[in-house]
Amino acid sequence: MSRHPAELIQRKRDGAELSKEEIREFVDGVVDGGFGDGQLGAFLMAVCCRGMSIREIADLTLAMRDSGVVLDLSSIEGVKVDKHSTGGVGDKVSLVLAPLVAAAGVPVPMISGRGLGHTGGTLDKLTAIPGYRTDLSTDEFVRVLKDCGFVMSGPSGDLAPADQRMYALRDVSGTVESVPLITSSILSKKLASGLDGLVMDVKVGRGAFMKNRTDAEALMESLVRVGHEAGKRVRVLMTDMDTPLGCAVGNSLEVRETIAALRGEGPADLMEVVFALGGEMLVLAGVADDATAGERELQKILARGAAMECFLRNVEKQGGDPRIVDDNSLMPTAPVVSRLGSSVGGFIVDIDPMVVGRATVELGGGRRQPTDRIDLQVGVVLLKKLGDPIAEDESWVEIHSATAEDANRISRRLVAALTVAKTKEDPGPRILARL
Amino acid sequence: MSRHPAELIQRKRDGAELSKEEIREFVDGVVDGGFGDGQLGAFLMAVCCRGMSIREIADLTLAMRDSGVVLDLSSIEGVKVDKHSTGGVGDKVSLVLAPLVAAAGVPVPMISGRGLGHTGGTLDKLTAIPGYRTDLSTDEFVRVLKDCGFVMSGPSGDLAPADQRMYALRDVSGTVESVPLITSSILSKKLASGLDGLVMDVKVGRGAFMKNRTDAEALMESLVRVGHEAGKRVRVLMTDMDTPLGCAVGNSLEVRETIAALRGEGPADLMEVVFALGGEMLVLAGVADDATAGERELQKILARGAAMECFLRNVEKQGGDPRIVDDNSLMPTAPVVSRLGSSVGGFIVDIDPMVVGRATVELGGGRRQPTDRIDLQVGVVLLKKLGDPIAEDESWVEIHSATAEDANRISRRLVAALTVAKTKEDPGPRILARL
Repeated sequence: MSRHPAELIQRKRDGAELSKEEIREFVDGVVDGGFGDGQLGAFLMAVCCRGMSIREIADLTLAMRDSGVVLDLSSIEGVKVDKHSTGGVGDKVSLVLAPLVAAAGVPVPMISGRGLGHTGGTLDKLTAIPGYRTDLSTDEFVRVLKDCGFVMSGPSGDLAPADQRMYALRDVSGTVESVPLITSSILSKKLASGLDGLVMDVKVGRGAFMKNRTDAEALMESLVRVGHEAGKRVRVLMTDMDTPLGCAVGNSLEVRETIAALRGEGPADLMEVVFALGGEMLVLAGVADDATAGERELQKILARGAAMECFLRNVEKQGGDPRIVDDNSLMPTAPVVSRLGSSVGGFIVDIDPMVVGRATVELGGGRRQPTDRIDLQVGVVLLKKLGDPIAEDESWVEIHSATAEDANRISRRLVAALTVAKTKEDPGPRILARL
Repeated sequence: MSRHPAELIQRKRDGAELSKEEIREFVDGVVDGGFGDGQLGAFLMAVCCRGMSIREIADLTLAMRDSGVVLDLSSIEGVKVDKHSTGGVGDKVSLVLAPLVAAAGVPVPMISGRGLGHTGGTLDKLTAIPGYRTDLSTDEFVRVLKDCGFVMSGPSGDLAPADQRMYALRDVSGTVESVPLITSSILSKKLASGLDGLVMDVKVGRGAFMKNRTDAEALMESLVRVGHEAGKRVRVLMTDMDTPLGCAVGNSLEVRETIAALRGEGPADLMEVVFALGGEMLVLAGVADDATAGERELQKILARGAAMECFLRNVEKQGGDPRIVDDNSLMPTAPVVSRLGSSVGGFIVDIDPMVVGRATVELGGGRRQPTDRIDLQVGVVLLKKLGDPIAEDESWVEIHSATAEDANRISRRLVAALTVAKTKEDPGPRILARL
């Protein structure tokens, strides 16, 4: 390091725009330890408070990408396209989307993350498939991608190591909600995985990190502009996360819903998001002329069972047990399943995703701390969705828990999630904007 | 901890005013390690960026004070008054002031710090006195204070331990310049030392942490209001640090200047600050009716040699060699002493304190990092001061160095410190404001 970290931190604290060289110095310090934890925490908070220009974010993203191995996927034909979501409650889109898009001939090299707080993570959900490996080496990652058209794995230790350290610290230090830090964290990992194009799902609403459209729009713009600076094809959709996506929330339960979706029996709102993102992925890959054509193509592929075939091939290649598709009980299954009824009759006008997400964490299905172990079997399944009629005492949610006490405790919590009204309100669309 | 540190950090990040309980939680976490370094760095930076209300600063200060032992000096008669300076170049005021005020019958329990960056520290200067101990235990601290009217020591490990951890981290993480953090750091230590009143010297100018009067005024107001909240008598003076104070800069050299000052031969600007602060201390202690009367009293005390007697008693009690007063060579003495002349004749209108302070650090007389060792013998002595006439080639500064190469290198640096003009400008007063 050519100067003391404190000087660099001070400059950001005082609102200066850092040069490319200064940003490289910072990222070097993250990787080689020149920036201690205290310095890293202070720098990240300075970025939270003072922000960064698009140029700074792009430089930060590229420096983080270059902090480790950058995969070379040129040996694989086609335009490699991945998808990323900022995370929500019941968001199992990736699990359905990856095999579906791969079945359309577009290679999908997917680097996924673990869940934290009220949001789930694709890696945790995959763990519910007995034997399924998400810790692939770089070589295995490329091989699986070649063999079955898509691959899903956690970032290997040599992929964007700067992000891995920053992400872990952000999570415990109140520095998560920052457009520059979210952008660079998402894109550095994705760029390092050797993709050509990326479709992003920026979720907005009570169950998302972005609570309002203004914040979501700022992140979308940052993602698109920085992605373009990095020379990649990028599309971003803003989707609604003001109620859980689909019906299942919880790891094993969400894989079950994934299997149903691959069979063509997915909840309408889940499929709306899957097709919208998939259509854009096909456009980026040059396989469809526009998103509508892409969506139509994917509907056909799903209907003829090609996505399910692709999923099964992948499960086998990554060490999982493909029999789960026919026998749900091979996955972790909660011993206690109970139902909760509505105290009044009418139409469901709200199901609060935070209440549902937190209830799942409390059942043991999510993490409060990065080191927490999770219970794959637990969670909740919505039996009704927004707009559905409901009678007094009729059940609207199923609770899958380890014990009857857990079920009782969580029932009392979940009551607050439901709002029933006399008149029906149509749930709005899930897709709110495209950039 | 009743909640995760990240929540508390986020609240400050988002500009919330933290409750007394939240601030106690934070300070508890600093002491018991519940706040890791990364979390502490992020919290400190959030305070830098978002600030704190006076109520928050007071709660923070008191929680930090209570994080360790609070000395009980009630066994010592009189109103115990201490002095604190925010630090500057050539600031040896404490060394002259403590024995002088003690000689007026006011007990001075002084907790001092070490120097960092371009500023010196009282503890380092005292180390130049052979044998002098600055690591007194709590019992020794009280005994020396009783025996000779004043005591000077570093904070023992059990005094405001929260501040000790925070201070060390702030220094390396670019979170030093913050009114709430400076206020709580100064006052928590001072309040823990059991004093009744405190006079503070907030330095402003290029050689100070506060570069402009607006920042200095904000700190003064914070110090006075928080001091009053803590039930103490507080006075704050704003003094000029736009040129070095006195002539000597460097540890051993500053003790020599201290001895001269105690003999009544101190530089005028140094004595102006000493008498101003001392006058206020006598007022706080109830020994003088007003600052002017206090100053007059101190001038008499100095003139009759009582301050020097008090100093000698203290040096002996704290293990030092009192013969230094008559024989400077008993203190560390640089092997190479050289002089630097002015390239033009005229009147001295500027001597930049940062250039002088940094030159001293480069000679080895200061620290870049908290763990650096310092060379007590080196430094510079100004032979001329602002307003003085100077002839072409006439020497204006003496360089005390370990080697001739050091002297050469530093000479080239020091050239930039001096500005000579054709017409004389009167140096302004050192005392700029009182609160």
